[in-house]
Amino acid sequence: MALVVQKFGGSSVADAEAIRRVARRVAATKQAGHDVVVVVSAMGDTTDELLDLAAQVTEEAPAREMDILLTAGERISMSLLAMAVNELGVPARSFTGQQAGLRTDTRYGKASIVAIGPERITSVLAEGGVAIVAGFQGVNELNDVTTLGRGGSDTTAVALAAALEADVCEIYTDVDGVFTADPRIVPAARKVHRMTYEETLDLAANGAKVLHLRAVEFARRYGVVLHVRSSFSDKEGTWITDAPAVPGQEENMEQPIISGVAHDRSQGKITVVDLPDVPGIAARLFEVVAEVGANIDMIVQNVSTHSTGKTDISFTLPEADCRDVLRALDANAEALGFSEYRFDDQIGKLSLVGAGMRSHPGISAKLFRSLHEAGINIEMISTSEIRVSVVTRIEVLDAAVRAVHTAFELDAAETEAVVYGGTGR
Amino acid sequence: MALVVQKFGGSSVADAEAIRRVARRVAATKQAGHDVVVVVSAMGDTTDELLDLAAQVTEEAPAREMDILLTAGERISMSLLAMAVNELGVPARSFTGQQAGLRTDTRYGKASIVAIGPERITSVLAEGGVAIVAGFQGVNELNDVTTLGRGGSDTTAVALAAALEADVCEIYTDVDGVFTADPRIVPAARKVHRMTYEETLDLAANGAKVLHLRAVEFARRYGVVLHVRSSFSDKEGTWITDAPAVPGQEENMEQPIISGVAHDRSQGKITVVDLPDVPGIAARLFEVVAEVGANIDMIVQNVSTHSTGKTDISFTLPEADCRDVLRALDANAEALGFSEYRFDDQIGKLSLVGAGMRSHPGISAKLFRSLHEAGINIEMISTSEIRVSVVTRIEVLDAAVRAVHTAFELDAAETEAVVYGGTGR
Repeated sequence: MALVVQKFGGSSVADAEAIRRVARRVAATKQAGHDVVVVVSAMGDTTDELLDLAAQVTEEAPAREMDILLTAGERISMSLLAMAVNELGVPARSFTGQQAGLRTDTRYGKASIVAIGPERITSVLAEGGVAIVAGFQGVNELNDVTTLGRGGSDTTAVALAAALEADVCEIYTDVDGVFTADPRIVPAARKVHRMTYEETLDLAANGAKVLHLRAVEFARRYGVVLHVRSSFSDKEGTWITDAPAVPGQEENMEQPIISGVAHDRSQGKITVVDLPDVPGIAARLFEVVAEVGANIDMIVQNVSTHSTGKTDISFTLPEADCRDVLRALDANAEALGFSEYRFDDQIGKLSLVGAGMRSHPGISAKLFRSLHEAGINIEMISTSEIRVSVVTRIEVLDAAVRAVHTAFELDAAETEAVVYGGTGR
Repeated sequence: MALVVQKFGGSSVADAEAIRRVARRVAATKQAGHDVVVVVSAMGDTTDELLDLAAQVTEEAPAREMDILLTAGERISMSLLAMAVNELGVPARSFTGQQAGLRTDTRYGKASIVAIGPERITSVLAEGGVAIVAGFQGVNELNDVTTLGRGGSDTTAVALAAALEADVCEIYTDVDGVFTADPRIVPAARKVHRMTYEETLDLAANGAKVLHLRAVEFARRYGVVLHVRSSFSDKEGTWITDAPAVPGQEENMEQPIISGVAHDRSQGKITVVDLPDVPGIAARLFEVVAEVGANIDMIVQNVSTHSTGKTDISFTLPEADCRDVLRALDANAEALGFSEYRFDDQIGKLSLVGAGMRSHPGISAKLFRSLHEAGINIEMISTSEIRVSVVTRIEVLDAAVRAVHTAFELDAAETEAVVYGGTGR
């Protein structure tokens, strides 16, 4: 008997029929002898509908009110799921974030969990029932409802799994697990059976819509074993854990060098031209950028041409942040002393991730060669211990992903039929 | 400056435009220098949609889960209204029943308020803001959400008005106030300018969809002045209070004899035939009826024909309760010893209500005569100190209402253009 936390995203509970299907899985897990805690997102488009209503009554909603509004969605899905599980003869009770003891700070819209006191959850489990918890929400010290921001339901699930010392936190999604690449681009992509938190973090940070960064970080910090799997099948999915592999089981006897190829089309590139090449200029530039709260990803500084005393700096960042950054550059053009900037939203980023590359030199060289042989130009490069990322033109990104996937021998013998997608919020 | 509680039903907040209209009224009241507390129901059909979803996942929803589900509706409307009021430059905060300090017992679906601790409301008012409270809901000692049952939002508003010692509790609806009869039936019906709690209770209990009984009882007990008015106009509505009339103001210098003619099409009549006429038989019969939780209204026992030792007992009750009662009669036919029963759902009830009739004998006689002259048969009669009710065939009920309205000189000189309707939940 195990204690299992199961998280279902919005697409898994999109309508009554979907809720009944999730209920059957929950009941089956319980009837197999396990203790079950379920974390659920709002049904399908509920959150978008609520956002739309808010936009109709106000131009700028107070954050506190927006959080109260949005959390209504999980209240609906959690109580309906509890009803559906009860209907199958398995006692179930639903709990809001507040009732589940999820205490957060007061940053509405992006609150952090500060403590969990899941007494009501444990007492339902002790009585032989299933606890169903609203994802994405908590309560602050004012007794006001807060939301955890993007990936909030994943975070709720992992945090509860940590607090309850669950054996596993199952993240249900609409694909069979984590793949070596997006199967829509690389039909020969393979499901990864097991990967480390670090690899998952690097994949997630580089465009693979696997799991939200924050939830993975939480899982790593507290050693929560994650199992990413499909809510539409009973297939085993992808296990995410740093625990030692069990000898004799599957391909984990030796850690694979590469766990996957991620890609990201959502970034823009800004190049600041002819900055005075004086000490501290990069710091001054990125202080200006940081002030608007933009998340900078890759940075490349051209070698200065000493004859002119000028340098160019390029950086990539989420497209959503670009406009604010460009405005900040305009406002600080004189102080920074650059001549102009260029903005490019037609870039794509490819990242090769694998914990095994630490002990395998030559990975970068092999990556660059495979791209060269495919006729693809590299515009920027950045590397970490377990990742190599390159920026290309957006229109050759898919070809780049396929070329790299093949070059690193990730292609499966047989193609698995999957649809790749997000995991809900 | 006054402290005003304003209650808006579901039809007043049916969509974003309606919410913006309510927000303008709330802001105007605040800007006129008053303290404002708003109680709001769920938007339009939200509650029905949630009930429909529940029916799709379960045949019998646990009451606790149903209450959590249904209260999502008020959470949505209250936060949207708070946003809309903020948008007008008036600071507003929304509060769930739990946050507003509405503590109830644990009877899910029909909880009673046991205490109110509205500290957060008073502190928002002290800061110059508007407090917006979810109607229909509270929290019990387990920290679980409860609903107050039918008329719950009215009850929330009145209870808050009592706890806050508000100057007036305004109940906004889609008509201009309480009318002497349903204007759809009696186009000459007049708006009542002022009436007592007792009259209002008798009207509400006898089919006038003015206000929910429970809210009026609460208002009477705590002396809360009610003002029933339209959310679509600024006209003065109907004041409900036992406070002495101010000399020189309107028609209240002398209390009118009759405040209105109510009607009710929603009852059925059951006649139990040939009961043994022994002491205690009525008690035994109505114990059987009470066991299924039916609310009996009128009861008539025929004069026993001593030769046979048998008697007939007829009673009226809400149609919704009839099936359960008939089943209970079937199950107890032998024990009660009756020969058969008859069920009649084609009845209508007319009630003439007026606190002034206490001191005016002959009201019943005048009522019966007016019906006789209109050619309408009376099937049952029941009276209280300030009310006379009769049962007729359902198809002549409208004619009966018009005849009585005219006979008691309630017809207005000019017809007011109104649509009569419910007040939301």
